[in-house]
Amino acid sequence: MNEAVETLEGWYALHDMRRIDWKAWRSVSAQERARAVDELIALTRAFAEVEGQRKGAYGQYHMAGHKADLMFLHMRPTIQELNEVKARFQKSRFADFTEPTYSYVSVVELSSYLAKPGVDPDTDPYLQGRLKPVLPKTEYVCFYPMNKRRQGEDNWYMLPMEQRREMMKSHGLIGRKYHGKVTQIITGSVGLDDWEWGVTLFADDPLQFKKLVYEMRFDEASARFGEFGGFYVGNRLGDEGLARLLHLEAR
Amino acid sequence: MNEAVETLEGWYALHDMRRIDWKAWRSVSAQERARAVDELIALTRAFAEVEGQRKGAYGQYHMAGHKADLMFLHMRPTIQELNEVKARFQKSRFADFTEPTYSYVSVVELSSYLAKPGVDPDTDPYLQGRLKPVLPKTEYVCFYPMNKRRQGEDNWYMLPMEQRREMMKSHGLIGRKYHGKVTQIITGSVGLDDWEWGVTLFADDPLQFKKLVYEMRFDEASARFGEFGGFYVGNRLGDEGLARLLHLEAR
Amino acid sequence: MNEAVETLEGWYALHDMRRIDWKAWRSVSAQERARAVDELIALTRAFAEVEGQRKGAYGQYHMAGHKADLMFLHMRPTIQELNEVKARFQKSRFADFTEPTYSYVSVVELSSYLAKPGVDPDTDPYLQGRLKPVLPKTEYVCFYPMNKRRQGEDNWYMLPMEQRREMMKSHGLIGRKYHGKVTQIITGSVGLDDWEWGVTLFADDPLQFKKLVYEMRFDEASARFGEFGGFYVGNRLGDEGLARLLHLEAR
Amino acid sequence: MNEAVETLEGWYALHDMRRIDWKAWRSVSAQERARAVDELIALTRAFAEVEGQRKGAYGQYHMAGHKADLMFLHMRPTIQELNEVKARFQKSRFADFTEPTYSYVSVVELSSYLAKPGVDPDTDPYLQGRLKPVLPKTEYVCFYPMNKRRQGEDNWYMLPMEQRREMMKSHGLIGRKYHGKVTQIITGSVGLDDWEWGVTLFADDPLQFKKLVYEMRFDEASARFGEFGGFYVGNRLGDEGLARLLHLEAR
Amino acid sequence: MNEAVETLEGWYALHDMRRIDWKAWRSVSAQERARAVDELIALTRAFAEVEGQRKGAYGQYHMAGHKADLMFLHMRPTIQELNEVKARFQKSRFADFTEPTYSYVSVVELSSYLAKPGVDPDTDPYLQGRLKPVLPKTEYVCFYPMNKRRQGEDNWYMLPMEQRREMMKSHGLIGRKYHGKVTQIITGSVGLDDWEWGVTLFADDPLQFKKLVYEMRFDEASARFGEFGGFYVGNRLGDEGLARLLHLEAR
Repeated sequence: MNEAVETLEGWYALHDMRRIDWKAWRSVSAQERARAVDELIALTRAFAEVEGQRKGAYGQYHMAGHKADLMFLHMRPTIQELNEVKARFQKSRFADFTEPTYSYVSVVELSSYLAKPGVDPDTDPYLQGRLKPVLPKTEYVCFYPMNKRRQGEDNWYMLPMEQRREMMKSHGLIGRKYHGKVTQIITGSVGLDDWEWGVTLFADDPLQFKKLVYEMRFDEASARFGEFGGFYVGNRLGDEGLARLLHLEAR
Repeated sequence: MNEAVETLEGWYALHDMRRIDWKAWRSVSAQERARAVDELIALTRAFAEVEGQRKGAYGQYHMAGHKADLMFLHMRPTIQELNEVKARFQKSRFADFTEPTYSYVSVVELSSYLAKPGVDPDTDPYLQGRLKPVLPKTEYVCFYPMNKRRQGEDNWYMLPMEQRREMMKSHGLIGRKYHGKVTQIITGSVGLDDWEWGVTLFADDPLQFKKLVYEMRFDEASARFGEFGGFYVGNRLGDEGLARLLHLEAR
Repeated sequence: MNEAVETLEGWYALHDMRRIDWKAWRSVSAQERARAVDELIALTRAFAEVEGQRKGAYGQYHMAGHKADLMFLHMRPTIQELNEVKARFQKSRFADFTEPTYSYVSVVELSSYLAKPGVDPDTDPYLQGRLKPVLPKTEYVCFYPMNKRRQGEDNWYMLPMEQRREMMKSHGLIGRKYHGKVTQIITGSVGLDDWEWGVTLFADDPLQFKKLVYEMRFDEASARFGEFGGFYVGNRLGDEGLARLLHLEAR
Repeated sequence: MNEAVETLEGWYALHDMRRIDWKAWRSVSAQERARAVDELIALTRAFAEVEGQRKGAYGQYHMAGHKADLMFLHMRPTIQELNEVKARFQKSRFADFTEPTYSYVSVVELSSYLAKPGVDPDTDPYLQGRLKPVLPKTEYVCFYPMNKRRQGEDNWYMLPMEQRREMMKSHGLIGRKYHGKVTQIITGSVGLDDWEWGVTLFADDPLQFKKLVYEMRFDEASARFGEFGGFYVGNRLGDEGLARLLHLEAR
Repeated sequence: MNEAVETLEGWYALHDMRRIDWKAWRSVSAQERARAVDELIALTRAFAEVEGQRKGAYGQYHMAGHKADLMFLHMRPTIQELNEVKARFQKSRFADFTEPTYSYVSVVELSSYLAKPGVDPDTDPYLQGRLKPVLPKTEYVCFYPMNKRRQGEDNWYMLPMEQRREMMKSHGLIGRKYHGKVTQIITGSVGLDDWEWGVTLFADDPLQFKKLVYEMRFDEASARFGEFGGFYVGNRLGDEGLARLLHLEAR
């Protein structure tokens, strides 16, 4: 049996993707819409407050294409809190005008492939900052889930630790080249959701998502062992942007 | 032809996952909701009573993400009783405000890979307790279905018994490391549902689901032979918690 | 090119699975429900009558889990009759309260892997009884579709006849061990539906479905060459049971 | 690089499959239904007229199982005409009572694997008749899409022309054995729809669909290289049959 | 590790496919339909205007089969603009009568496999014209997404650059044979959507889509390494054509 790599975990994450039911939204009065938007903004502000208090993280995004219109990204110390957050949104007025199209449940993870010895993760400020992150306030976000392949000769989990470490190191070097352009948060989801990891990328220029993921694809860790789910891209919405998106002209 | 391992079976299980139709729920009067909740609580108490009488088992959970809001987990001596339980819920007021998103039909199973000789499973209290279990009252639950792979060189069912036994033994040792942290109930579903087994895990700390499943993934039995369906995670709901989840503030 | 095995065919079969729309069912008056149930029972009796006249076969079942609530199983001499049966049900009152979730179109098939020479299938009573069967009146039913694999080294259709015959013989021996416990009807669906065969099992104890299919999985014919679709399990419903299932208490 | 086989193309084809919404159909008055049926019959007659004028082909079918109730099969000289035909149906009264469940866009194709030299396809009556066919007026129809496999050792498109030709020849010999029992129209859909070819079979006895497809499956061209989508079977409907299918008894 | 090829990127693209809800469309008054069409035409003219200003590109198409009725193809300098375009359409009257069935988010890409040295892509008019294209005004369009395979021996991303370059060169030669018949726009979507590339073809004769894609399939770059998603074909609609498509006769 191979040795499993040690992992450190921080906050749990819920990526909550929703489509807006524009027809229903338009069918109610401007007053009703205003009330729903006001309540929504109050709610999203409450969600955002946890970030200031370092009790969680929150971001909201306008998603591209038909797979979703909105993504709400929550991080919290427990799954129960994520469930409460889900219910709180579901009970809001605006939720009636949305339908869930996808979601992802995972937990912020640092793998020890590249760990430095002699550091206590429970107190080290750098590690704590990565395990319980503030979400980067970049213009764009990208999310995708992934697995390490277990297929015939290409079986990640049958490789010796040393070989996996080498490949992850090379993989990490590519990531480092994008330092300052792309920030990535890795969340683990083995035993929590349908893929093994979620990857959330943050950048001001979405072309960097493409450049980074494409360059990695030629790296053995991805080329032979990466299996990818759907890719979701969007731009960050402030409260004003969210209100503007939901605003309908009088007819 | 290879020798099939002998299995012992106990109660049948129905994992019944449902999404709540919050819009419809909100559209009816508070009085109607109260009536539906009262009826639901009476029903779930009746479901729970079988556990006291050792005629079955029952648990209810608030599920994470968009795949389900609720999971009702029933165990009963026959499939017909599970069908009756399904119909009884479907005929309840609250059922109108839910839609099924997934379910799993299986039967509690102990495989004899690790059986001790000279024990009569029909009377042995330990075996009987595992075949007809009381559900652990932990904070969190995890469910996923799985197969043993039959693909090219990685064909579990073409392996000699001895090799399978060795791998399952190693697999079991990992499980044992989590004793006291994670309780698992294996249910067999060959001939009953779309995968070969269901795995239901119980823990107070859901991180242990991740740790356990991830560590097992490096074990040959999983690395080469495990194929996994969706993973569903939730936290346990008492009647009070269920009522609180369904409560809507007056507007 | 390999030699295709000869097959004998009997009645065509339609496995018609439906979910009940309980919300809509509850939304109409008790009188309207009674009228729909009366009409339905008259219809299912007419369906059942063909069995007495040996012009077809019919069974109705309460299905487990979310994949279906009801399965209607029809056998008839022609596909056109199956289409008429489908339309007849669709035009009934009760049909409005159901939605189709799955169906399977196939034809009862005996393969000549194990054929005895000197028997005329068109007149032999044993063969005729199997090709145009009366459905066993057991408590439980199980249905699943399947293919023979054509993948790399595991390509059933590239094997010489003799090797296929050997494997099917071994396969048949397992089936025979369950004589008296499980009755199976094999239907062929190459050119008729999405898989190559349908398997319908009948037993009073559904554990025997699991035991049989699991034991077969270790047999090379299944281990290397079996590919399986969804598994559907249910218990048989008489007219009274059907009426009871559809009965709603006054509120 | 391998040599691509030359192909000849004729009319474009639209296989348009629809489910009838019986509940909505029943919910309107008998008068309204009569109006919709009259309009539908007028429309289908107009569709059928192109066949007499040799400007296209048309057939309508009652489909088996839950995948569709009706299939409308149109052939026309251009895709634009197929789009117009689609819109014309969509704008009809009856269309409101149907929903599309599947469709297939392709073009009648003859491959030159078996071409005879010295024949001008643009004028040869035999080839013209096959490229712009009249649909056989048999009792039953069968449709399925398919690919040639490109997987590891089984990669059709990496084979030399001569080997492909040999396999297609053997394949064609099986087809020829069914001459007089099954007529087949091959349509190509590379670059037009999700599979590489569509196969439409016509026979008075649907058992011949099964016999033909099953026998071919043992042929190397299918056994190693055939990948198949869903199979759809139905019986041909005249206008009277269509009207009868749509007729509802007064209640 | 292999060397990733350099790519040049231009405008972002949104392929937005929608089905028309004809029943709802017919259910509103002719006046309301006229208002919705007028607004839609004004909107699509605004979309088309960016093409004149060289600030983007736009095309609208009537799609074949059930997968979509309409495709709106937008190109813009940023994803945020594509999101605004999406919202602008969603807020239009006509959007209520459509539902999204598919979409694709990507960015115009030129790979440097065949790059000429000494050219500055930021100023070279030829490259700028291809990176920020005017959409060809051909009669027909074809769209499909694709991957390069990473499977066992057929792993594109594990090949040395030189071998990839050779294959792409041969691939390009086929494309060049169709010069004047088919124009293709390649868009990259690694990190943006579910496949690695989108291919949009433009031709007056849709048979050329089939000829081109089929011929390429025998080329090693496709035969061994091409994986394809769904294929969507349609004919271009002018504003008049769009209005005609949406016109309903009075009844």
